Amino acid sequence: MNSSIIRYILGCILKTEAALMLLPCLIAVIYQEKEGLWYLPVAAASLLLGVLMSLRKPKNSVFYLKEGCIATALSWIFLCIFGAIPFCLTGEIPSFTDALFETVSGFTTTGASILSDVEALSHCSLFWRSFTHWIGGMGVLVFLLAIIPMSGGSNINLMRAESPGPSVGKLVPKMKDTVRILYLIYAGLTVAEIILLVAGRMPLFDALCTSLGTAGTGGFGIKNDSIGGYSPYLQWVVTIFMILFGVNFNAYCLLLFRKIKDFLHMEEVRCYLLIIFASVAVITVNILKTCTGLFDAVTKAAFQVASIITTTGFSTTDFHQWPESSKVILVLLMFVGACAGSTGGGIKVSRFVVLFKTVRKEFFSYIHPKSIKKIKMDGKPIDHDVVRSINVYMITFMVLFVLSVFLISFEDTDLVTTFTAVAATINNIGPGLELVGPTGNFGFFSPFSKYVLMFDMLAGRLELFPLLLLFHPTIWKDLFAYKKTVWKEHHNKASRLNRLAH
Amino acid sequence: MNSSIIRYILGCILKTEAALMLLPCLIAVIYQEKEGLWYLPVAAASLLLGVLMSLRKPKNSVFYLKEGCIATALSWIFLCIFGAIPFCLTGEIPSFTDALFETVSGFTTTGASILSDVEALSHCSLFWRSFTHWIGGMGVLVFLLAIIPMSGGSNINLMRAESPGPSVGKLVPKMKDTVRILYLIYAGLTVAEIILLVAGRMPLFDALCTSLGTAGTGGFGIKNDSIGGYSPYLQWVVTIFMILFGVNFNAYCLLLFRKIKDFLHMEEVRCYLLIIFASVAVITVNILKTCTGLFDAVTKAAFQVASIITTTGFSTTDFHQWPESSKVILVLLMFVGACAGSTGGGIKVSRFVVLFKTVRKEFFSYIHPKSIKKIKMDGKPIDHDVVRSINVYMITFMVLFVLSVFLISFEDTDLVTTFTAVAATINNIGPGLELVGPTGNFGFFSPFSKYVLMFDMLAGRLELFPLLLLFHPTIWKDLFAYKKTVWKEHHNKASRLNRLAH
Repeated sequence: MNSSIIRYILGCILKTEAALMLLPCLIAVIYQEKEGLWYLPVAAASLLLGVLMSLRKPKNSVFYLKEGCIATALSWIFLCIFGAIPFCLTGEIPSFTDALFETVSGFTTTGASILSDVEALSHCSLFWRSFTHWIGGMGVLVFLLAIIPMSGGSNINLMRAESPGPSVGKLVPKMKDTVRILYLIYAGLTVAEIILLVAGRMPLFDALCTSLGTAGTGGFGIKNDSIGGYSPYLQWVVTIFMILFGVNFNAYCLLLFRKIKDFLHMEEVRCYLLIIFASVAVITVNILKTCTGLFDAVTKAAFQVASIITTTGFSTTDFHQWPESSKVILVLLMFVGACAGSTGGGIKVSRFVVLFKTVRKEFFSYIHPKSIKKIKMDGKPIDHDVVRSINVYMITFMVLFVLSVFLISFEDTDLVTTFTAVAATINNIGPGLELVGPTGNFGFFSPFSKYVLMFDMLAGRLELFPLLLLFHPTIWKDLFAYKKTVWKEHHNKASRLNRLAH
Repeated sequence: MNSSIIRYILGCILKTEAALMLLPCLIAVIYQEKEGLWYLPVAAASLLLGVLMSLRKPKNSVFYLKEGCIATALSWIFLCIFGAIPFCLTGEIPSFTDALFETVSGFTTTGASILSDVEALSHCSLFWRSFTHWIGGMGVLVFLLAIIPMSGGSNINLMRAESPGPSVGKLVPKMKDTVRILYLIYAGLTVAEIILLVAGRMPLFDALCTSLGTAGTGGFGIKNDSIGGYSPYLQWVVTIFMILFGVNFNAYCLLLFRKIKDFLHMEEVRCYLLIIFASVAVITVNILKTCTGLFDAVTKAAFQVASIITTTGFSTTDFHQWPESSKVILVLLMFVGACAGSTGGGIKVSRFVVLFKTVRKEFFSYIHPKSIKKIKMDGKPIDHDVVRSINVYMITFMVLFVLSVFLISFEDTDLVTTFTAVAATINNIGPGLELVGPTGNFGFFSPFSKYVLMFDMLAGRLELFPLLLLFHPTIWKDLFAYKKTVWKEHHNKASRLNRLAH
């Protein structure tokens, strides 16, 4: 395995994080908060380690899927650890486990919090929490691709390992350009939301944090009642932007390139909008009695459906109080997730579309046993390997889900809490039901359970395999073997030099 | 489609059911109960319709998987409808929906009951309830194969449609002999259990009904506390026989034919026993505090684990009171189910073994991208089609599960009840948790929900596809087209005769 390139990437990631940490410092300067001071030493330490690790450029910059996965998994773990330290130093989240939980939840765009009183946080820490969503949403390694030069066409392995969903296409010939376009759209939409929110008389800081949280489909609120206290106009703006950030970004690229026909052909996006529409309709009827009117019901239903399916996790109402059928719809949407290639989490709509087509094909083969039919998506036949990898993904997802539920069950809380806590973290949503519902938080869990849930958040965000691969014995044997070879070479060289000296 | 063979098979099924209904009459004679009289007219009606339907032998007795599925699905529906009528006529279950629920639950070996006081039933009805388990356990169409002559080697399509699990092998060259051997083992084990139970001083009638329920992995108890009132010896006998009936019957065939090496090679059986052992161990430790001692804890844990994994559904204790982690294990076991080719339900251990191997293979391919590895089971490579059909099964299962949970959620009971009610019926187990727990019953559901759950029970027992195929529009168009062709031919013939007459 090419471990020098992994080391190099890790170094670049740490340098980037150091730079990003200057932003909360800036916020601290504006609001004259002394908490901001603590971000500086962490940024310095991150920079130092980053420079040390990326000092020597790797000779061989080509890497395969394996290296891509390992680099991605380790990068995210490093990012989270360094990102958590300021919370501890400022004393706002004294326990390191809790601070790490909050940061993992931030970077993975989950939005599950251990804080019962968010409003007690300083502005710079509130900003850092929301900013982690924004960084995590599009993926920080993807960002690296746009700024650091890496030779070889194998960068796609890095992007494939980090991007949500099964389909990452090359939109333009050069990977770097693709990434730049994606980030441009991402930033553009974020700015548009900030403007629309400020236009609706939301304070600028609130608008900034809310937009960062929406863009990354994260869900950290800066108020204790999340978005519930804002006007219906503001809630609708957030609703629409949540839905927009859940759309496959390829759709926006197609729009940019004026490929309207291809855009309209995108089955996943159509399906995604259809699911949202149907869910909102059913829930609106279902909760009508508990609301003040039809508009109130639609506003609440649309907000919550958008928040859950895009795996953002904001809330405007305590949906735990809704009738059972509405809650069941929300729990199901937790697993559906957003489109592939968006900033959202979950299993992704496109996977379900493919699975649904597989089943339809099977039924067809029962009736016409001799027919040969290929599954198509967006009018193009799907490779058999894609179907297989989706199946494997589903199974792995289930295994991890079941295992996590089992481990969390030792908390001895009720089944619904256990089940939805895992569902809300592995799908990067945030709130679940019962004790982890919109009015609750994850603070009461034991450190062990918190680490399990952190693992789920990271696994969910990185689409399982990169993180799980870390636990494969061969990987470590490989890294170890490489070091041994290096050491041997070094030793041989040294003894040869010794011999020459004699 | 060859619909005349379907008609003929349905006729045979009804004749068989008429014969089987004489047994509760016999029980009624012994206990001098007038309820038994009501079984006679139903048996007569069933016989009459059966004779009428099978009067004309089909010219073409060859049929494909499609016909096999439709014949199976319709047979089971007919069986259940006729089987339910006596409960209504005796007045013991006045509502037809409830009676049908009880009978579907019986034939599908689920064991979910709508009765709150089982002990109020007459002996003949109690026997009929338990006997439906025994009939459903091994499959009544499979039984037909042993007694009615059908030409062509395509009988395997019928057996494949009805037998639980993905693997139905030809054990001996002739299908008929295979079925006879299976039924011999089935009956032999049932008799052995009756003898062992009677030896432990269980009344003969109780032993008979309990054994029938165990053999079919059904779970209808004849006492209000299920098996809880019997001695630990009797509980252990039932435990062991539940586990035995959950084993792939091929294993017993291999033992019969002295193929010990092949027997020991059966991965599924080893895995099944391992899961039982591990679950019992964890639960024992987990419930130790709530029990009177280690033996009591092991007895309860072993009984409940065996009852749930084999999808029998007997209970000796109110496991709803157990700690959360034990409950989670039980819920997970609900989905695992017994071995393929046993009388048990659920998803089946072998499917999970294959799925697990698929994931392992995928991880391997991440690390060694150029390797080509084939998944093996019992030392033999698995056909790609088997893997694909297991994946399709899993997806269909999930879709049906989710849809059912959604429909049942309109009852507005708690999530755990909704979730486990569907899990307990689609996996043919019986009791769930909360309101449908061991001390509850399914009586409170609305008729609509009861029909949804009945559908789940049938779909679960018939491994989804045969029943779902009934809802495929082409099937009815096909049947209809056939009738139209026949009618057209008939019409043409008639007009030709008319012309000749002129």
